Amino acid sequence: MTAPRPLRVGLLGFGTVGRSFARLVKEQRERLRSTLGVEVRIAAIASRSLHRQETSWLEPPVRLGTDLAEVATADDVDVVVELIGGLSPAGDLLLAALAAGKSVVTANKALLAARGPELTRLASRNGLFLGFEAAVAGGIPILRALRESFAGDRVVSVGGILNGTCNFVLTEMERTGRSYGDVLADAQRLGYAEADPEADVGGADAAAKLALLSRLAFGQEVPVDAIPREGITRLLPCDFVYSRLLGRTPRQVASARLMPTGHVLLSVRTHLVSSESMLAKVTGPFNAVVVAAENGGEFVLSGRGAGGDPTATAVLADVVELARSGPRPGVAPFGSPVLAPFAPAAPEEFAAPFYLRFVVSDRPGILADLSRALADQAINIDAVFQAPYGEKDALPFVITLETVAAPQLSRALEAIAALPFHVEPPLALPMTP
Amino acid sequence: MTAPRPLRVGLLGFGTVGRSFARLVKEQRERLRSTLGVEVRIAAIASRSLHRQETSWLEPPVRLGTDLAEVATADDVDVVVELIGGLSPAGDLLLAALAAGKSVVTANKALLAARGPELTRLASRNGLFLGFEAAVAGGIPILRALRESFAGDRVVSVGGILNGTCNFVLTEMERTGRSYGDVLADAQRLGYAEADPEADVGGADAAAKLALLSRLAFGQEVPVDAIPREGITRLLPCDFVYSRLLGRTPRQVASARLMPTGHVLLSVRTHLVSSESMLAKVTGPFNAVVVAAENGGEFVLSGRGAGGDPTATAVLADVVELARSGPRPGVAPFGSPVLAPFAPAAPEEFAAPFYLRFVVSDRPGILADLSRALADQAINIDAVFQAPYGEKDALPFVITLETVAAPQLSRALEAIAALPFHVEPPLALPMTP
Repeated sequence: MTAPRPLRVGLLGFGTVGRSFARLVKEQRERLRSTLGVEVRIAAIASRSLHRQETSWLEPPVRLGTDLAEVATADDVDVVVELIGGLSPAGDLLLAALAAGKSVVTANKALLAARGPELTRLASRNGLFLGFEAAVAGGIPILRALRESFAGDRVVSVGGILNGTCNFVLTEMERTGRSYGDVLADAQRLGYAEADPEADVGGADAAAKLALLSRLAFGQEVPVDAIPREGITRLLPCDFVYSRLLGRTPRQVASARLMPTGHVLLSVRTHLVSSESMLAKVTGPFNAVVVAAENGGEFVLSGRGAGGDPTATAVLADVVELARSGPRPGVAPFGSPVLAPFAPAAPEEFAAPFYLRFVVSDRPGILADLSRALADQAINIDAVFQAPYGEKDALPFVITLETVAAPQLSRALEAIAALPFHVEPPLALPMTP
Repeated sequence: MTAPRPLRVGLLGFGTVGRSFARLVKEQRERLRSTLGVEVRIAAIASRSLHRQETSWLEPPVRLGTDLAEVATADDVDVVVELIGGLSPAGDLLLAALAAGKSVVTANKALLAARGPELTRLASRNGLFLGFEAAVAGGIPILRALRESFAGDRVVSVGGILNGTCNFVLTEMERTGRSYGDVLADAQRLGYAEADPEADVGGADAAAKLALLSRLAFGQEVPVDAIPREGITRLLPCDFVYSRLLGRTPRQVASARLMPTGHVLLSVRTHLVSSESMLAKVTGPFNAVVVAAENGGEFVLSGRGAGGDPTATAVLADVVELARSGPRPGVAPFGSPVLAPFAPAAPEEFAAPFYLRFVVSDRPGILADLSRALADQAINIDAVFQAPYGEKDALPFVITLETVAAPQLSRALEAIAALPFHVEPPLALPMTP
């Protein structure tokens, strides 16, 4: 085999993933060359904190510096690998790189969710590669699967467990019976949750990933802000007790469904899934993506959804694709070269059996008031549960509902919220297979 | 978007998968054109039984006939889709097609296992596409994942549940407590097993798939005959009873591991896996492929591993890849353009705790004889189990062993087989996580 022309990487960012990527390039270089005939070389690294990092292990020659914009457009760079994260300055740096004729690989889901179409258009116009496999579910190759393996089929739903922090917290709450706050503190100590956990536990992270997945799956320009989201912060230990009684367990599920109308129904929220389901088996900081297609049926991909090494391997796989195949102008980053406008499903298109959990200050007539509010919206109660649990002035109990449409339930919950006996705001969770 | 040049398909074979593929091309044509800018057209179909098939639903113009060789090399065909199966004449037809400058997509795992390197060399020499995603695990896009998504990492193991028939039979035996023969008859009635089930239940089908997976994963020229295999035919209802006692369940597992020596350890056999493991959760006619890589960690892909529609979607995905990207000479069908010679692991590289099940004609001294044969090979017994089950003249019981190397165990089993009290030959199954 003749020596291949090296693909020269300009690396922006040298945090956990950046360092892992540089190490991986060094360790895999010989294997890539001998088995795949591919030569990848890091030509330059820019990071604002580079002076605080050990860099002596990097293979020379590599230019090191703090000038991100210089590396993004440098003459000796073929592909810019962006691992700084955040919207700014990453967005402008990548637009500058694409304008200067550099291909781009990034793991920046927030940026792609916000400015993906703009980046895609510029990459396509200039015949460049834009890879972002690492932006969703780290080491799980779901974007490539949607872009290529499902190209011959109509995808009808995509989603699953897209946030490892939430899954760790929920499965630890279930396993230990401890409170959200206690388990979150553990997760922070173990490195499974950030010091500021809001993007993870509040659902923003999963919503950004779901926006990317659903663009690829349905070919629509899904805006991340169109995704309704609820976090996991309101779950109480009693919710795990009642879930078990129901043969279910709480999972934070991101869901995108193509409805028969052609509309897309999106949400990030906690579901009570059946204990026998695939999603229930996914425990700890793992991710699982479920795809259903018209002819191929349902399939599940699970693995570690984050971490420096899994994310870096996904970045390197994109870089290797570029080195082996070039930009492949026929394969647009989001599958379809031109995404259709977003067609959101109306709220009434979502219906499911629901779990309602109340914590009340006990007094006569509570069940009568709640039943009345539900009956006023023609909602059928399936069952009422009250485990031997809680105190008279903070008594939890649960009402399960037969299948109910979302707007009906919202109206009932609005009326219920105005009732005077709540100690905690009521919690409503869909119960899905 | 300007109208793309159509990619013209010559379809060989019009059985279940062939008809499903033709229907899919018809149904997805408009979506492929409008969203991906790809035009796929079936120009010709050849099948020896075409006269027995309904063909009026096919979109004209399509040439229909029985001359496979004509369609394989026809001037109006860009890509030959081979769905006739078997080694002959499929192998010669595809070599003729590649020699005539046609790209090839096939679902024929037996052919690829036997003649993959030959087909690959000819495709590469002529700059043509050779796609076979559908050959392993139908709708599960595992080959593309290994070829592209794991390109930047070193895969250290690949395998899992690769045969839906075996998995259906095992999980039904577990669920119902019925015998192998009864459940197999059910599977045949339900279409989950062939009239001649030998290739499935005996392990040949899984071995062919494992050969393809391990070539892609490890870049070695793994011959299918090098894979030791044992079928599921010797399992008895009592094995499910004892498995449950051990917190385990039988699964037919295909396994390929890259050892620290660089050797590859291969097998297709029944394992007793932990009831908590991912593989234990895969029930019915499903497949699950587990890949572990040095940096990316472990990931699992599961879905329907067979059937006309899932297989046809995988075939169409390959055809769409060709239509969008052309042959991609930098991406060899087995990943590495030149596979290294196969380096098989020595039998002693495999070690595991084992389950030994005996069915004996009860008499004094049996346990003493068995213990002696094991002690002679310095094998430690972990526990002895005898459920209240069976008759005095056909009494099943189980000995579990601490971790033991394969050659040691073989020698002990040879000595044990010579003992006079067996009613069934002893069964030895590794117990793995």
